[in-house]
Amino acid sequence: MKTNKLYFGAAYYDEYMPYERMDTDMQMMREAGMNVIRIAESTWSTWEPENGRFDFSHLVHMLDCAKKYGISVIVGTPTYAIPSWMVKEYPDILSVTHSGPCIYGHRQNMDITHPAYRFHCERIIRKMMEVAAPYENVIGFQIDNETKPYDTCSERAQKLFVSYLKEKFPDIGEFNHEFGLDYWSNRVDDWENFPDIRGTINQSLDAEYRKFQRKLVTDFHKWQAGILREYMREGQFITHNFDYEWRNFSFGIQPEVNQFDAAECMDVAGCDIYHHSEDELTGAEIAFGGAVAYALKKDNYLVLETEAQGSFGWLPYQGQLRLQAYSHIACGANSVMYWHWHSIHNAIESYWKGVLSHNLKENATYREAKIIGQEFARIGGHIRNLRKQCDVAVMVSNDSLVGFEEFPVDDTLNYNDILRWIYDSFYRMNIECSLVNDREENLLEYKVLVVPALYSADEETIGRLRNYVEHGGHLIMTYRSLFADRQLKIYPDDQPHGMTDVIGATYDQFTCPKNVHLCGDGFSEEKSLVSHWMELLIPGEGSAWATYSHPFWKEYAAVVHHAFGKGTATYIGCHMDEDSLGNVLKKVLELAGVSGKNTVFPVIIKEGFNEYEKKVRFYFNYSPDEVEFVYEGADGKELLSEKLVEKGTKQLLKPWDLMIVEADC
Amino acid sequence: MKTNKLYFGAAYYDEYMPYERMDTDMQMMREAGMNVIRIAESTWSTWEPENGRFDFSHLVHMLDCAKKYGISVIVGTPTYAIPSWMVKEYPDILSVTHSGPCIYGHRQNMDITHPAYRFHCERIIRKMMEVAAPYENVIGFQIDNETKPYDTCSERAQKLFVSYLKEKFPDIGEFNHEFGLDYWSNRVDDWENFPDIRGTINQSLDAEYRKFQRKLVTDFHKWQAGILREYMREGQFITHNFDYEWRNFSFGIQPEVNQFDAAECMDVAGCDIYHHSEDELTGAEIAFGGAVAYALKKDNYLVLETEAQGSFGWLPYQGQLRLQAYSHIACGANSVMYWHWHSIHNAIESYWKGVLSHNLKENATYREAKIIGQEFARIGGHIRNLRKQCDVAVMVSNDSLVGFEEFPVDDTLNYNDILRWIYDSFYRMNIECSLVNDREENLLEYKVLVVPALYSADEETIGRLRNYVEHGGHLIMTYRSLFADRQLKIYPDDQPHGMTDVIGATYDQFTCPKNVHLCGDGFSEEKSLVSHWMELLIPGEGSAWATYSHPFWKEYAAVVHHAFGKGTATYIGCHMDEDSLGNVLKKVLELAGVSGKNTVFPVIIKEGFNEYEKKVRFYFNYSPDEVEFVYEGADGKELLSEKLVEKGTKQLLKPWDLMIVEADC
Amino acid sequence: MKTNKLYFGAAYYDEYMPYERMDTDMQMMREAGMNVIRIAESTWSTWEPENGRFDFSHLVHMLDCAKKYGISVIVGTPTYAIPSWMVKEYPDILSVTHSGPCIYGHRQNMDITHPAYRFHCERIIRKMMEVAAPYENVIGFQIDNETKPYDTCSERAQKLFVSYLKEKFPDIGEFNHEFGLDYWSNRVDDWENFPDIRGTINQSLDAEYRKFQRKLVTDFHKWQAGILREYMREGQFITHNFDYEWRNFSFGIQPEVNQFDAAECMDVAGCDIYHHSEDELTGAEIAFGGAVAYALKKDNYLVLETEAQGSFGWLPYQGQLRLQAYSHIACGANSVMYWHWHSIHNAIESYWKGVLSHNLKENATYREAKIIGQEFARIGGHIRNLRKQCDVAVMVSNDSLVGFEEFPVDDTLNYNDILRWIYDSFYRMNIECSLVNDREENLLEYKVLVVPALYSADEETIGRLRNYVEHGGHLIMTYRSLFADRQLKIYPDDQPHGMTDVIGATYDQFTCPKNVHLCGDGFSEEKSLVSHWMELLIPGEGSAWATYSHPFWKEYAAVVHHAFGKGTATYIGCHMDEDSLGNVLKKVLELAGVSGKNTVFPVIIKEGFNEYEKKVRFYFNYSPDEVEFVYEGADGKELLSEKLVEKGTKQLLKPWDLMIVEADC
Repeated sequence: MKTNKLYFGAAYYDEYMPYERMDTDMQMMREAGMNVIRIAESTWSTWEPENGRFDFSHLVHMLDCAKKYGISVIVGTPTYAIPSWMVKEYPDILSVTHSGPCIYGHRQNMDITHPAYRFHCERIIRKMMEVAAPYENVIGFQIDNETKPYDTCSERAQKLFVSYLKEKFPDIGEFNHEFGLDYWSNRVDDWENFPDIRGTINQSLDAEYRKFQRKLVTDFHKWQAGILREYMREGQFITHNFDYEWRNFSFGIQPEVNQFDAAECMDVAGCDIYHHSEDELTGAEIAFGGAVAYALKKDNYLVLETEAQGSFGWLPYQGQLRLQAYSHIACGANSVMYWHWHSIHNAIESYWKGVLSHNLKENATYREAKIIGQEFARIGGHIRNLRKQCDVAVMVSNDSLVGFEEFPVDDTLNYNDILRWIYDSFYRMNIECSLVNDREENLLEYKVLVVPALYSADEETIGRLRNYVEHGGHLIMTYRSLFADRQLKIYPDDQPHGMTDVIGATYDQFTCPKNVHLCGDGFSEEKSLVSHWMELLIPGEGSAWATYSHPFWKEYAAVVHHAFGKGTATYIGCHMDEDSLGNVLKKVLELAGVSGKNTVFPVIIKEGFNEYEKKVRFYFNYSPDEVEFVYEGADGKELLSEKLVEKGTKQLLKPWDLMIVEADC
Repeated sequence: MKTNKLYFGAAYYDEYMPYERMDTDMQMMREAGMNVIRIAESTWSTWEPENGRFDFSHLVHMLDCAKKYGISVIVGTPTYAIPSWMVKEYPDILSVTHSGPCIYGHRQNMDITHPAYRFHCERIIRKMMEVAAPYENVIGFQIDNETKPYDTCSERAQKLFVSYLKEKFPDIGEFNHEFGLDYWSNRVDDWENFPDIRGTINQSLDAEYRKFQRKLVTDFHKWQAGILREYMREGQFITHNFDYEWRNFSFGIQPEVNQFDAAECMDVAGCDIYHHSEDELTGAEIAFGGAVAYALKKDNYLVLETEAQGSFGWLPYQGQLRLQAYSHIACGANSVMYWHWHSIHNAIESYWKGVLSHNLKENATYREAKIIGQEFARIGGHIRNLRKQCDVAVMVSNDSLVGFEEFPVDDTLNYNDILRWIYDSFYRMNIECSLVNDREENLLEYKVLVVPALYSADEETIGRLRNYVEHGGHLIMTYRSLFADRQLKIYPDDQPHGMTDVIGATYDQFTCPKNVHLCGDGFSEEKSLVSHWMELLIPGEGSAWATYSHPFWKEYAAVVHHAFGKGTATYIGCHMDEDSLGNVLKKVLELAGVSGKNTVFPVIIKEGFNEYEKKVRFYFNYSPDEVEFVYEGADGKELLSEKLVEKGTKQLLKPWDLMIVEADC
Repeated sequence: MKTNKLYFGAAYYDEYMPYERMDTDMQMMREAGMNVIRIAESTWSTWEPENGRFDFSHLVHMLDCAKKYGISVIVGTPTYAIPSWMVKEYPDILSVTHSGPCIYGHRQNMDITHPAYRFHCERIIRKMMEVAAPYENVIGFQIDNETKPYDTCSERAQKLFVSYLKEKFPDIGEFNHEFGLDYWSNRVDDWENFPDIRGTINQSLDAEYRKFQRKLVTDFHKWQAGILREYMREGQFITHNFDYEWRNFSFGIQPEVNQFDAAECMDVAGCDIYHHSEDELTGAEIAFGGAVAYALKKDNYLVLETEAQGSFGWLPYQGQLRLQAYSHIACGANSVMYWHWHSIHNAIESYWKGVLSHNLKENATYREAKIIGQEFARIGGHIRNLRKQCDVAVMVSNDSLVGFEEFPVDDTLNYNDILRWIYDSFYRMNIECSLVNDREENLLEYKVLVVPALYSADEETIGRLRNYVEHGGHLIMTYRSLFADRQLKIYPDDQPHGMTDVIGATYDQFTCPKNVHLCGDGFSEEKSLVSHWMELLIPGEGSAWATYSHPFWKEYAAVVHHAFGKGTATYIGCHMDEDSLGNVLKKVLELAGVSGKNTVFPVIIKEGFNEYEKKVRFYFNYSPDEVEFVYEGADGKELLSEKLVEKGTKQLLKPWDLMIVEADC
């Protein structure tokens, strides 16, 4: 979604404040150039302290005060944390999961299929919208927050699942066959006998249940959006705060939600991106998370949450907060909003610190935010609504992610690890990538398409990949791709299914490499280490770009490359170290005519086109040292200093500093 | 059991096939020299898709087709995995364990004491036998599969346990005394008040419950065998697929079953042996597992399952599959049967690969199987029904294993670790060992008897050990032996109980060694490391073969040796490194007149007598390198090459290769 | 409590004996100089084998026999382990905890708020007292044993908690505000809707529940003491066996009990101290545990349990048992009692060995006990009732301990780690410390007061600390002190709350140090490592004793020191290595005029005044080597050898040996 300004602000919770100080807060925000707050998404019990008694005084107070200080507001529906009275009233409203029934206290633990939950959600949303929608300064609404299925396995949910299966498989025999339920006597020949899904040892069935759970989220979003739209005024938008695989930071695509489907009912994608800081700040999560968010609507997105002081050990060094803010914008974000304005004085997130510390006073972090706010006000028009355009796309797939969880390589390498292995390799060499869904039809927009670990793929997807190569695309596909169908039934013919002619090779055996290295052009038998997984590729028409250095596996190929139709396919049959992967990727980029960058990490380059159709180039120094690089773009103006920058000149960046050049091309 | 051929084949499950291809499969088997399949043991839901509706079409199809291709069949009762409808009908049919109630999906999770389970078992077995028993090519039946008590702790099972205790202890006071229940106020003075066994902190009681659980398995086998024998034809046999302590491979004796008792109702012992492969292939599990299986009936056994491609990371190098096959036969197996013919396309064992990969085509593994099959057909008559005869026996004990679990040394050294510490030491020096039960009466067959970690022993067993030494046997006993009675009550007198005069030493204190080494003949104060456990032995009549190198424990002995009666006893009071243990074992072997081998691991030697009463010697190269050794047997014929081999000549073995010499003596 | 002799003995359980041998045992005790046994605390089921049937024959037998051998007896109420019949009768008598319902078998698993439990406790106690109290040789009674709340979360207990909250917060709105329950929609606006505490994500609420649980223990002790006092004769005392944070040894203050409160109803504090032995014996736990026990009543205490052979790996070297015994006495203990006399032959503590091993005969440990007993008899009058007087006090706080558990620094550093970091640093430099409660009013007794990790402190405590400094005290306070109030609500102003003027500095940001060292006088940028936690101190009036060596944090202080009023305050803002901490502590000791010792660990010095008001100095060699040191006390008599020792002379101590000098001053 395009916006008429860069939004800069924070989540704000008057409800949590130890004492009344709203004017002070908003005054401080305004001084810092903050122009938006996001409120309300977890305060149901404040607004409805008892069943049917409503009290929106906090909400009204915040909306009024924000109005007074000229601050825009995004209002969240409060449905992701339910009040205690609701649980007393409907004890079974809490989710029953693989680990047993949830217990009250935590957010995000209710059964979103429960009719009473839906009833109370609808009522509180309608009441809230009556209050909030009319406000001029309310620019949009956030549905719920980081919605998940919360692993609901209630009897209710499981019955819905059986109905879902019945509809998909009118013939129960076909169902048994497709899922291979004869194995270990698991057949279900009467839907009434369907066993508790939580005990299944059939990964196909388990994966299907997880697909069903993801659908519950999509449906829930669509349902809330419908209610919101009954009240919204012209110009107000719907968004959602999408998150990522969580490893105490935002690591990979979200396993529990199909965000492409879920985002369909929204106007603009929102997200929260958290990452390491201090010496571990690399910007990779900002770029990766941004690429996901941009992909959801193929458009600019909102960063609804990101860290200020953040989690313990993430206190930004001087310059880092500003570096991060511009990095988001450079990826196509139209907002930078901190979670959250003030640090909290009770409960589980007390040490997840906001802009202000617990003393609620100006501090180092606030002072840096002030700089950002002032700069955004000055140059925002040149860097907002950035149009991103990439030569390379990386395909992502929820089903394949689940495939890896059901059939892991090992404890240390899941789907997102492989995705990030690919993505980060491009990141470090300053090749920006788009992400595309595994149902994407317009693949030929991209010169190079990388398909990592597409374990689960149906014939349609495989057909599109074949078509891509046939029509001139350059495909890179990794090990464990096209191994199973959408139900995780392993294809009973040559691997990778449906593509052996395209890649010019096949395999039926694979093993765990121990002391295996790569041989071949650009590889080193000492350093090019194969780890985790290796397929014993038997090249047919394809040529071996690498083979295995090992006494008993040496006749097999590790990487094969094959010209097919008007394009080429490169199949990477094993996991390898970063340099070796880089070697393969670079070869394909060259073939595909994608021009590389001479400047690499820790200087990160991001590019896009602004509203004036000028090309904007960002240079970020992700290091504690001063760095020098040669500016290789067209002559242009550095937006912050307003100095001219000429092509081919040496540029200097201070630690954690940046520059932004606007040029005609 | 003696067989009239070597059996070579695989488990086969038509039920799991993604499409109809039975003729193709059996044709391929026949071409590979396979002559047996094992079927049916986990397909109850296919045969009885709904309660009382039977469909044996898959079974009939397999039996007919096998007949057509001249393939023998072992048919398993399908009772180790119950259908979903049974759980809907009798929700309490699933086992309630120490971890709570089981949930449907997994195999081996029912309460084998449940009357409904027994009813349905009996019905399906009778129906199956009516179909299968008449077939000429059905050579035998397998009861259930890897049966266990599945930790049943249901109210029903616990009531049976109280009855069992009542019968054993008519006087409840004696029961309290024997189990020491005064401790922590645990007395039970009315059987009605017997508490849930799962909470007990009394290891004696817990161990007794586990003994009771093992008895449930023995009873279950006997019951199934009774039914089977009503239908079996002359010449058909009963077997069972016994397994081992599972550490993702077959490590030690099975803790949950007393296999000696359980095997009594059977005609031939069967087993499944799985082990590491590739660089980690040593053959030790094949030898150890084979020794267990041979011991159960003191006769040849069947390898009903072993790996083809196996688990991830076990893909055999060229030659390994063949090396393994002959290793089984050399230990006294009369069959090598893979689990399984084809890799599965759904569910939990999809990556436990069979002979064929998922593409179901000829591959490297199949091609090696073909070689084995052809060789077996050619030389099988000379290597089947091998009679094993060992000078050394190692005593095993379920009760002592449980003793170690109840009172562990530490997390890394359980009973089986100590058993394998002893067994593998002999294995590496090419001394073949028999295993004997702790109730074995004919100990004097063996020149040397090793008793590792016999923590729990009753007076009868101790009497037999005393008698063994008195009558000329050479006993080696390790630390923590004869410490407690069968109920794990620690003997309240000098340790080791009842044997202090035999070993000529005693102790009452022990500790955990830190930086302790051994002093004595053949030990090195630098290298001979004591670890895990050390007893402070006070020698009486016995002489110290080793003492402790430690400032504060130096006056105590670590190993004592004593001539007693016509024999000798050697007591090893601590855990020590492999070389030190080897030093002790070799001294005793020498005393006992057991001749050692000059060739040691990685060349493994196995010997036996064939049907012609000729001596057959196998030489296996368990290494990736070519090895040379001197053949020290009598002049004979190498069976595979049909060349003559003379005593004292140098022989060369290629990586993972073998030779077999048949000689008159 | 003062005693008229040193008590030396053991716990004794006739109930657990494998056969009758009481005369033998007591004869052996008498020969070893043992004069006390402790009996009965876990044998309820023996005395009341069925509901209402009592049998005190074991008790009577022990009391009579002890009388015969002149042995005093401490009798425990048997209430910490309930009989099996009680659970059958009242299944809900077992505690329901955060991990779910307890199961019978273990001790210490009942709900101490259950009325039936109280009823049966009272009945058995009264019956027991009728038997035991009249005995002349019964010197005292122990309430229960190591009492805890056993994490009771039963509905009953939780209702009591709501009542407790209601009383504390008559205004439910204030309750919500103080605990910050608006957060994540956790408000409770009707006490009837109070959710199950076990699910809370509000650490303030969780901490309050734990405070409530500690109060249950205090109330329980008071209740039992009331019953006991109805029966006790003049001169008999009440004690309790207090224990410590358990890390398989006695590590820190007990988290689940406020021992200061609980000890109020008692006459003398008792404790059990367990620690590593052999090479790991340092004496630190004896000193620390003793300091806690001494603090509870500010008087001499009883060591009711300590190890003889103890846990596996703790077998004392020759001399260690004696070294330990005197170490206890040197800390102010009036007894050394082993747990336990004989090793047990069944159940969970079979390997926690007593004085005698399982063979129940004289052994090395018994022989060393004999030496101790004889020496105690000889010199006991000079070392009992030792008055301890320390210049340094260390403040301890259950609430702060819980604060650390609720908001941990990381997995490896909890409250007790920091407490021991401080305590042990003093221990190694031979500065004896008193421990004081965080509600202690007489702080000015001490020259130096150390306040480690006082995370949770109310205004009263803070006022007392301010007052201490103002009036001349030297305060050392560590990081994370005064951060939150008693309800763990973080103070919303400058940190450390209420003391920024006293320490002359403040901070609002902190982070996790990586590669951070200290700069400053006495620190080394190579070695002075900052770890776990660092606060970014901004010095005001205070001076920086240390700053951070780090490119981005170098402007902040790590340690600040400030003269305030008549005293000084030193604030340690980070965790640092031992040497660096020692450097800070020594500086303050010097300022405060506390004289240091030239002799340090492994020679440990303890001092006190005996009944003759003479000063007794103990010198312990906690090492396997002979050590030499210079005696710096006044001329006096070594009590064991009766030799004179002159000030300034060199003294020699054998491994694990000791000397005791009595002097006039």
